[in-house]
This record gives sequence, structure tokens and C-alpha cells, in this order.
Amino acid sequence: MDRPLRLGIAGLGTVGASLARLVTARAQTYALRAGRPIEIAAVCARDRSKDRGVDLSGAQWFDDPVALASQAEIDVFVELVGGSEGAALDSVKAALNRGLTVVTANKALLAHHGVSLARLAHKKGATILFEAAVAGGIPIIKTMREALRGNATSRVYGILNGTCNYMLTRMEKEGIAFEDVLADAQRLGYAEADPTFDIGGFDAAHKLAILTSLAFGCEIDLESIFVEGISSVTTADIEAAEELGYRIKLLAVAQRTESGIEQRVHPTMIPAASALAQIDGVTNAVAIDTDLLGSILLAGPGAGGDATASAVLSDVIDAARGVRLPALGVEPARLAPYKRARMRAHEGGYYIRLSVLDQVGAFASIARRMAENQISLESIVQRRREGEADDETRPVILITHETTEAAVRKALDAVSRDGHLRGEPRMIRIESLS
Amino acid sequence: MDRPLRLGIAGLGTVGASLARLVTARAQTYALRAGRPIEIAAVCARDRSKDRGVDLSGAQWFDDPVALASQAEIDVFVELVGGSEGAALDSVKAALNRGLTVVTANKALLAHHGVSLARLAHKKGATILFEAAVAGGIPIIKTMREALRGNATSRVYGILNGTCNYMLTRMEKEGIAFEDVLADAQRLGYAEADPTFDIGGFDAAHKLAILTSLAFGCEIDLESIFVEGISSVTTADIEAAEELGYRIKLLAVAQRTESGIEQRVHPTMIPAASALAQIDGVTNAVAIDTDLLGSILLAGPGAGGDATASAVLSDVIDAARGVRLPALGVEPARLAPYKRARMRAHEGGYYIRLSVLDQVGAFASIARRMAENQISLESIVQRRREGEADDETRPVILITHETTEAAVRKALDAVSRDGHLRGEPRMIRIESLS
Repeated sequence: MDRPLRLGIAGLGTVGASLARLVTARAQTYALRAGRPIEIAAVCARDRSKDRGVDLSGAQWFDDPVALASQAEIDVFVELVGGSEGAALDSVKAALNRGLTVVTANKALLAHHGVSLARLAHKKGATILFEAAVAGGIPIIKTMREALRGNATSRVYGILNGTCNYMLTRMEKEGIAFEDVLADAQRLGYAEADPTFDIGGFDAAHKLAILTSLAFGCEIDLESIFVEGISSVTTADIEAAEELGYRIKLLAVAQRTESGIEQRVHPTMIPAASALAQIDGVTNAVAIDTDLLGSILLAGPGAGGDATASAVLSDVIDAARGVRLPALGVEPARLAPYKRARMRAHEGGYYIRLSVLDQVGAFASIARRMAENQISLESIVQRRREGEADDETRPVILITHETTEAAVRKALDAVSRDGHLRGEPRMIRIESLS
Repeated sequence: MDRPLRLGIAGLGTVGASLARLVTARAQTYALRAGRPIEIAAVCARDRSKDRGVDLSGAQWFDDPVALASQAEIDVFVELVGGSEGAALDSVKAALNRGLTVVTANKALLAHHGVSLARLAHKKGATILFEAAVAGGIPIIKTMREALRGNATSRVYGILNGTCNYMLTRMEKEGIAFEDVLADAQRLGYAEADPTFDIGGFDAAHKLAILTSLAFGCEIDLESIFVEGISSVTTADIEAAEELGYRIKLLAVAQRTESGIEQRVHPTMIPAASALAQIDGVTNAVAIDTDLLGSILLAGPGAGGDATASAVLSDVIDAARGVRLPALGVEPARLAPYKRARMRAHEGGYYIRLSVLDQVGAFASIARRMAENQISLESIVQRRREGEADDETRPVILITHETTEAAVRKALDAVSRDGHLRGEPRMIRIESLS
């Protein structure tokens, strides 16, 4: 058997500790699968004395990830420090500069610096692997980087944030309001004390930025992503969706259009009968539309120490087996520049909910504003449910045929200005699935 | 750029012609993704003059796959001849003997000879890749061989035959009888003139045999698979399933049990609300239950020239990138022997449909036979639908709690012998999904 593969693990939090326990407890199995033993040669964590359920006394301990990456006698540097800058970035650079293989679960690092790190890796004959950075245990990176190479991809989309999906699922199944579900999710540990990164859609955007590059062979561009979180989704929207044959999910979508590549994260109505609509709770799912395959769907756990460790192990064993692929699928110099398609040019159907004042001509005025913007309506529902609206307004729900984001925004601005509404119009995009 | 990767393609049927067209038409894109040009150096087909939509005049032509595999100046031998013996087997052996990389879409070849071919490949320093052999364009081989290596797998199951799924979907959606759907499927080209291989469950069994090996690190054992096809499924079963909250799919399942590994292919009731139950038409889907990930699901097109070519291309580009992995995930000498769990020991719920004669004591007798065999019932439905039964019988549907196959068979034998039934009892296994 070949000589052992020596790991240096920077960060012994939930994922790092899980990884260390697995590598130790399953040494024989992993040696079989890797063709050689895997050993933990070096680790780095703030607290050396903490009980992590694994004996790491045989490993070299470092206080600083950069020192570990620069000095430890290792073959693979596993970065589980987190954050897009600082120790994470510096340690990964140090490891790549030595020509080491880097395995990371750090979506923020890749979303911000993926291309420059891929360039550095290429220059130094190093490798950077990151299956764990997107959708936890779902092998979406391997699938897009390797399995779909024969295809031209037209769209990749998915449920990439477990916290949001858990919250939307509970709102739907139990009819609980957003704020109450959020409080519950925080109590249960599914949402952070500051939940903005998740519920604002930013976590999903980081993951999407990486998938976009793999899907279209272009550079990563996090900043261009249109992001809208789930905090404005109401149980009324969810009920209306259900009646119309849809379910609401926070979808991340990257799509090739005539004007470039659209990247967007927003609450989305998808057909209730689709497989994607059945993805409930903290589960993630990604679908990819390609020319040879049509559509394929992958679903599984999006987070958790063991699921993320599983993805890290997939990369570690690839490294042990000598697999060496360009980080983003092609040599970094061959990545196309990212060409942004503006959100205003987005085409699709729209769900619009208005709280209309009970005035003569209100409805005619709304209909006129839609027509002025060439928006044709698939359905119009006007009704009052018990306890939902006050005496002076009634909820009106419009479903448009395919139109543009620009037209909808313009029409809704005009409707607002006309003074027949209470509050702002609500709008949720509808995604056609293949 | 590195020197070109030279392909030898044996077989220019639907998949081979699609592959040849793609490699030619997308040469630049594939060179980018493969890090080197890919060229068709040699081909083999019976008819040289047939128009396949691609100019192959630059390739060396062979009449015989074995001659191509033995003599052509190639790096990768793509076997698309088909069949488990004869030219397919001989040509693959010849290529492996030369140390070449073999890429094949041939499930029968692998189900019968996978282990001995893996041994030969290992001995000769060759590689054998077969993403296209199971579930067409779904990257299930790569996922199981590479992405899940950190996990212990407890079960792999899926919809592996598009013909059967197409037929069951139409029976369900349109209420058409099996024979009529089959005739239609044959007319449309979704079913062969002799449909036994598909509807008898044998095609799914071949694919399952391969997945079992990857899931459990054991040798392939096609012969041990319990196989039951879909020809006895009736629209009455499908309607009853719907009322009970299930849908009927032809499922292929491999599962670790206390007594060994269970491999089975049979019509199966699965919860209607599951993502797997939404997989309709010719789509395939595979789910894998593991200890680190829980359950992951992959769905996509199971067949078709382009989808299969896509899987072949994934392997070809892996070969171009120098990826070299053991065919079945571990070195062939390290595969465990397959240990069979007998079907009689299978544990699960059962749907039982009886055509009971209208006699005093019939029902009491059936209930006693169930009790004698420790079978407890979750529900009992007795009713007569218009036109469904004659005046002398009434349909009785039993859903059991978890029990064993042996108990159910024994109970049904006894019920049959008691003489209260018209015809044979019908039984469909229920699968619990995680």
C-alpha cells in the first residue's frame, strides 16, 4: 500500500471534529477506498483541551491556520476556519503556494476569491476542492464539474438554504407567521441569532455564485446577483400559492439569456406537483437544465457536521487517489468573463398581491396599468377572507402571463401612485420548471 | 496543450452516433474541459456507408470490435456493442489487456462480468468506466463510487427502468390497462417488440447488481436478485394505492440486513407525497440511504442516445484528465464476497388484494390465517365497485403492518387452500422511505 495521505485540519468546530472522528474511527474502510491510509498529521484550533470525542495527541498542533498551512508536513490542507478573508484566505494561499491540495467547505471564500485562488492553484500545480461548500452532502460540485461536461447548461436552480426552506415549510404546513417561525427556528438552532445571512438570501447567493461558474464556464461574480430574502413572504401568499397550484420556495437561479447570464435569489412560486416542490424542511435540492440531458435533480441534506464532513471526505479521498482537476472545471485562464443579464430584463410569470381600497374605479385603474405595460393576466382573484382584510380594502391577486421584470415594476409603481392601494404591492416571481 | 486523447468507438448505433457527432461538433468546448483535444481515431460498425450525421472518414475503420480493441492506435476504447458475451466481452478484454481505458454503457456485461473485468483492469494497470451503464444521464456511478466514500450505505433504491415507469404512469394518469399501454409503448418506441427484458424487471436487475456492489463494497451477484415484473399490476391496484396514499413504481432495492444483503426488483407501493413518487414517465431516479447523509435523491433521464452519450463523455473526459480509479470503488481483491439475504426474510408492509367469494365465514377465515402467521393489519377495505367484480365475489384489500415475506406467503397459501377466493391472491410490497 502507498504511503499515507497526511491531512492538516484547520478548524475543529462541528465539521472539523466530525471529520477528525470519522478519519480516526473508519481508518480501515477509508484506507480501502482511498487506496492508502489517511492520517491526521496536523490540526489547528483555539482550544487544545476541549473534548472532541477523538484522540488527536498524535497530531502536530498549531495555534494559527497560516502556520499550519505553511509549515506542517502534510499533503492536504483542510480549511474549516470560515470567513472570506483573514486566516481562511491567508492559510489557503499559503497551502496553494506550497503546491498542496486544499479542501475547503468555505463558500464565502470561494464566492469572493474563487477565481484568483484557482489561478494561484494552477500556477503552483496545486489543487483546490470544495464539494462541501455548496449544498452540504449533495454531490453538486462533482456533478457539475465532472458528470455534465458533455452538456451545454442553460439553467441551474435550487433550494440552497436549509433555514429558509425549513421556515417556509413550517409556515405552509402549520400556518404560522414568519416572525413566530423564525423565533422557533432560532430556539431549535436552525437559524442564527442574527439570521440576516440566511433569510436575506445571502447564503444562497454565495452558493449560487459558485454554481454559476461551473454551469457556464465563466468567472465567479457574487456582486451581480439579484438577492431578495424571505422576510416579506406572508402566510396569505403561501395560502394563495397553494390555491393556485404552486408552492413558495427560496430559489437560487442562474440562467443563460440572450443578454448574458442572469443570477437571482428570491422567493419563487413553483408548480406544486413538481419534485422540487416536495423538498421540505432543511433539505436542499439542485436542478440543472442541459441540452443533452434535459433536467436532472439532486436532493439531500444541505448542512450539518456529518453531511459536510461527508463532502470533505469525498474530496480528501479524491486527493488520495491522485485526482487532479482544475478547480472550476477548466483552466482558470480559459474561464469566460461573467456577462451580466440585468434583472429588469428577466422574463417570467408574476404573482401580484394588492390590498385594494374599496373605491369606484380602483379595479379598472389597475387593469389599465397592466395593459399599458403589455402585461396580460392569466388569472385574477378578488375575495375577502374572514379576518384577513379590514372593511376598507380587499385583497386582489393577479397572476401574469410571461412578461418582464421591468414591465411589472413599472406597472406596480403606477398602480401605487394611483392611490387605490393600502400599503405596497407584493410581487413573487413564478419559475417555469422543465 | 497536451497531445490528443484518441478514442476508438465500437458500435455506431444511437449512442455511438450521438457520441461521434458531439465529439466532432463540440471539439473546442470538450478540449477546454478535457485539457486536451479529443479525437475519434478508430470506429467499428457493420455498415460503413450509413449517414450518421458526422464525417468519420478520418478515422480508421474496423469490421470487428475485437480487432479495433486489439490493434487501433487509441487511448480509450468505447464499447457500445452491447450484449454480455461475444464481441462486447472479447473486445473489452482485449482493450484491458493492452492497458487501455475502457468506457462502456453495457450493463449486462458488467452485471455478468464486472468483477472479473475489474480484476483484469487492475492487473493490467487499465481502467474501466461505466457511468452510462446505469440510469443513463444521472451521475449515479460517480456519486456512489466517489461522492459517498465517507459514508456507510444501508440501502440504495430507485426507479431504474424508464419503460416500466412510463407504463405505470400512463396506467395511473389515464386508467388504461396494462396490455393497452404496452401496445401503445411499443408503437411509440418506448418498449421493445419483445418487452420481457424491461417489463419483467430484468433490465432493472442488471443495473441494481452494479449499484449493489458500489453501495456495499461487495462482488456483483446478478443471479441472487429477486425479480418480479409489472405485468400483473392492474388499474385496480393503482386506484387502491391512490386511495391509500401510495403510488406504485417498479423499484429496485438493495439493502443491508442482519442476514446479508437483500437485492430485489418488484412493483412497490411508496408514499404518494414522497419526491420519488413524483418521478413520472421515462425519468429514472435513485435514492441512497447513508449514515452521514441520511437520504439523497438523484433524478433524470434514464435512457436516450444523447443522455447516454452525455454519461459516456463524462467518463471520456475523466480519462483525458488522467483520473484513474478502481472500477468498483476499491481494488477488486478487496471486494467482500456477496452475502445473500433471502427474500423470505424480507421485512416490510404488504398490500394484499383478494377476490373473496360471497360465503359465510370467508372473512373470518382470512382474518384467522393472518393472525396464525403473526400478521397484524393496518387497514382492511372491503367494497364493490361498479363493474369491477361479479355478483359472487367482492374485492378485499388488506394493508399489513411490518411483517416478513415468509409469513405473508404462508398466510396467502393457506387462504388460497381454504377455498374462499376466486383466482390467486395479489400482493404488492410497501417500501418505507426515509
